[in-house]
Amino acid sequence: MSSDKKPTIGWIGTGVMGLSMCRHLIEAGYQAVVYNRTKEKALPLVEAGAQYAKSPADVASRADIIFTIVGYPADVREVYFGDQGIFSQVKEGAILIDMTTTSPTLAKEIAHRSRELGAAAIDAPVSGGDVGARNGALSIMAGGEQEAFDRVLPLFQLMGKKISLLGEAGAGQHTKMCNQIVISGTMIGVCESLLYARKTGLPLDKLIDIISGGAAGCWTLNNLAPRIVKGDYDPGFFVDHFIKDMGIALEEAAAMQLSLPGLALVHQLYVALQSQGGGSLGTQALIRALDVLNGGDQ
Amino acid sequence: MSSDKKPTIGWIGTGVMGLSMCRHLIEAGYQAVVYNRTKEKALPLVEAGAQYAKSPADVASRADIIFTIVGYPADVREVYFGDQGIFSQVKEGAILIDMTTTSPTLAKEIAHRSRELGAAAIDAPVSGGDVGARNGALSIMAGGEQEAFDRVLPLFQLMGKKISLLGEAGAGQHTKMCNQIVISGTMIGVCESLLYARKTGLPLDKLIDIISGGAAGCWTLNNLAPRIVKGDYDPGFFVDHFIKDMGIALEEAAAMQLSLPGLALVHQLYVALQSQGGGSLGTQALIRALDVLNGGDQ
Repeated sequence: MSSDKKPTIGWIGTGVMGLSMCRHLIEAGYQAVVYNRTKEKALPLVEAGAQYAKSPADVASRADIIFTIVGYPADVREVYFGDQGIFSQVKEGAILIDMTTTSPTLAKEIAHRSRELGAAAIDAPVSGGDVGARNGALSIMAGGEQEAFDRVLPLFQLMGKKISLLGEAGAGQHTKMCNQIVISGTMIGVCESLLYARKTGLPLDKLIDIISGGAAGCWTLNNLAPRIVKGDYDPGFFVDHFIKDMGIALEEAAAMQLSLPGLALVHQLYVALQSQGGGSLGTQALIRALDVLNGGDQ
Repeated sequence: MSSDKKPTIGWIGTGVMGLSMCRHLIEAGYQAVVYNRTKEKALPLVEAGAQYAKSPADVASRADIIFTIVGYPADVREVYFGDQGIFSQVKEGAILIDMTTTSPTLAKEIAHRSRELGAAAIDAPVSGGDVGARNGALSIMAGGEQEAFDRVLPLFQLMGKKISLLGEAGAGQHTKMCNQIVISGTMIGVCESLLYARKTGLPLDKLIDIISGGAAGCWTLNNLAPRIVKGDYDPGFFVDHFIKDMGIALEEAAAMQLSLPGLALVHQLYVALQSQGGGSLGTQALIRALDVLNGGDQ
């Protein structure tokens, strides 16, 4: 029961990102109904006042605005189109917001089915990682109808700082793909640069300091290069997830007959890293795949 | 004639970069002897008080600290080792500073020959472009002996903000190579991202704005992506020069048996751009080579 006119929020997917994001809504006074495949991970939200639902369908039957942020496109498909999925119970007039990074094509399918059922859909993947989620400082890249976006904007503003509607359904996902394509480039550039530097015996800290202030400056150099120098390959962002994202981008590009040779190369090197057992490392571990390529003796 | 105890400066190479850099020294009260293959380009410095020498050898016979910043490794070799080169007349105790981006191997050869002649050499390529040169805000990456570096540091401080000695002879050039390797990555990432964005019809200004604040953030996205959006391919940094730099990096890497597949791919795409007539465009024109690869219909 909502004690004021605020819509009831549904939240599906309470991993590292979803947990923090949903918490901001609860703290702002929204009534939330949550669901997660592994129930335990949702309990902190229940303690914070959320109700627990027994399925995505159950969430859909009780909520006006439903957020989803799960793992892979297949998970998103199950959450929306499955037997116990959102679409089996969605209320007319509901707004469904998928914040998973997934395929633009799937986002369009969800939007299409939502319209058929009298609901609206927004695809709204994010960037900014666990820290951005915790601090309500995410970038949110949205696709969908302006009217639905405007209604959800106050909620987005509780989770993010930069929020933008970039076009129709799928545009948010396409924007996230553009984001990941840039990162594929900064990552290979930084990792090959550090490999070259190590081989020549340059002092890595001094190197990073002097080149980061100029045209080579990038987030990856500032944030991930120092971790590589320390041998820290813990995940900020998982290799497995980055491979998923690059795979989607390559698939979408190929469907548009667009060749992206740089992205394809980086994708393949990450697949190699995965085959070497590095799937659950952080993306900066790309340098390890390049090490192996070069005899692994560094 | 020097009116105080300041060393006499020699300056060889008065192109866009060299002209601004040498001017800072003259304005700080140093007596300068300058030479340039095309004399006209050196005249603004003569007007500012510099003497004009008839050859690099002539500069060497009159100066205590000699800076060179010319075009390609072959030009550097001619300036130092040629019949009318610096080494034919260099004074004992002189310091020779090559600020051209050239090969670490050549830098070591220059340092070796300098020692034989009782002089010292520093390799000190820069980044920061024409604007950085004009504002005395370059990054200067040096290799060589600490003692020589310390003597030259007050002069570097007139040209640059970030100044670092990264090791023995060649270390400055190796550092610059590391800088260019990172840029090869940011450039392919940004260009492929914009290509994907155009193909999907995303609003490019909004896209750049939202992704630049996060993990995709980089100098190339901030500074060159907006030029691409405007169709501005004027050179900040020439494609021809970038190809030279990447070629040096690949050659040095291969000599160390280091495979850098990302750099190699980007190098090849720039060679393609050169073959399409784009050598004197700015590096952001990489997107045009990718356009041609994709049928050129964008």
